Amino acid sequence: MNTRRTRIYEGKAKILYEGPEPGTLIVHYKDDATAFNAQKKAVIDGKGVLNNRISEMIFTRLNELGLPTHFLKRLNMREQLVREVEIIPLEVVVRNVAAGSLSKRLGIEEGTALPRSIIEFYYKKDELNDPMVSEEHITAFNWATPQEIDDMMHLAIRINDFMSGLFLGIGIKLVDFKIEFGRLYENDMMRIVLADEISPDSCRLWDIKTQDKLDKDRFRRDMGGLVEAYQEVAKRLGIMPELAEPERSRPQLVKSD
Amino acid sequence: MNTRRTRIYEGKAKILYEGPEPGTLIVHYKDDATAFNAQKKAVIDGKGVLNNRISEMIFTRLNELGLPTHFLKRLNMREQLVREVEIIPLEVVVRNVAAGSLSKRLGIEEGTALPRSIIEFYYKKDELNDPMVSEEHITAFNWATPQEIDDMMHLAIRINDFMSGLFLGIGIKLVDFKIEFGRLYENDMMRIVLADEISPDSCRLWDIKTQDKLDKDRFRRDMGGLVEAYQEVAKRLGIMPELAEPERSRPQLVKSD
Repeated sequence: MNTRRTRIYEGKAKILYEGPEPGTLIVHYKDDATAFNAQKKAVIDGKGVLNNRISEMIFTRLNELGLPTHFLKRLNMREQLVREVEIIPLEVVVRNVAAGSLSKRLGIEEGTALPRSIIEFYYKKDELNDPMVSEEHITAFNWATPQEIDDMMHLAIRINDFMSGLFLGIGIKLVDFKIEFGRLYENDMMRIVLADEISPDSCRLWDIKTQDKLDKDRFRRDMGGLVEAYQEVAKRLGIMPELAEPERSRPQLVKSD
Repeated sequence: MNTRRTRIYEGKAKILYEGPEPGTLIVHYKDDATAFNAQKKAVIDGKGVLNNRISEMIFTRLNELGLPTHFLKRLNMREQLVREVEIIPLEVVVRNVAAGSLSKRLGIEEGTALPRSIIEFYYKKDELNDPMVSEEHITAFNWATPQEIDDMMHLAIRINDFMSGLFLGIGIKLVDFKIEFGRLYENDMMRIVLADEISPDSCRLWDIKTQDKLDKDRFRRDMGGLVEAYQEVAKRLGIMPELAEPERSRPQLVKSD
């Protein structure tokens, strides 16, 4: 257990620490919720614990399917051990149903099934509000090579296949999700692996029967009940429900610096 | 000469009439100037005459180079005869230097040379402000096939090569330009051809020595001197300067209905 750790980076919902071995990092899931490029903020007790568990579950299954990810193992309620990667500065969005910014930009009513799954790229740059970009911008500015774009799209489609099935099996429609990729250097080789997280913070998840939103749109749209929705997702995924409670009443397993 | 013609379509800067033969159209260049999706409007005497001549000159050269266009011939000061095509609902933008919306969206100072020419697609839909789209949206919504996208990009690159050279030869930097393509059906075949126009309304043209803008940005940015700038472009292109004057003082060759 680390008592003093080097903080590498603090993002909106997570902190990265140096890991125990070279080439590893510890990801700490915070309870902070942000939306609209952090113009809207709140602390939601228990969210970090839930996202850590949900992301662990999905990344573990993806690894087992041969879809490479940065995930190594969960360390405790809020932390997981991952491989250090060079993050590609793109948010990759996969959409199955029109919602959010696509509905607005292209004038398609939310909930409309798309003719096929659509992959979008956004340039990760807070001060520009993460503008949408095309393969032309990505290759011209060297954010990723054409081969890396192909690899990301190929992985994104397979991840969408797996996740659509997983959520369908528990009565949830996977509307869209955002993922990030990184370059993993190993034995003089480089490969693209899934990084970051997959959780109700980064997905749109609609209950198939009731159309209830079980994701961060509850926060973006002031609908309330965010933790309850994330708990419902965790419960249906078979993740132990007691871990979904706020941790204030629980002993902390690891103390951050 | 038609005295009564069927008006097919009236756009912001042009009117389309039925042509004399099946499969042809007459394009009439108006003096109307619009910007920011027609939120800003004006009538600028002589602009239509200049754009008709400049576009004629460029399309004629492109046809000679084997780059297929809809252009057949100029009919008079404001009109040209073109082949009827099925317009693909995309604006194709080729950029050599950062300016306008790219500078704003990606935070790159106007005038910065791009690492390579970048092709962008915008969905032609006034009520959505022509949103930028990627190949994913274009193919998912069937606005164009992957082969048609390839054809358009291939033609766009060649048109950029020709136009960059043409303008460089007359002391003008081709910063960016917008083109549109159409499907031409002929002998049971379909091919993609350049349609619409190429003029200072659809290009950014900067004088290489003075950096003066010789294009529609003079109107967008309230700089004045629009017709004088277009006349300068026409003059350098070797187009007869007397045609660049307002036509009110000249006899009309063809009367529109």
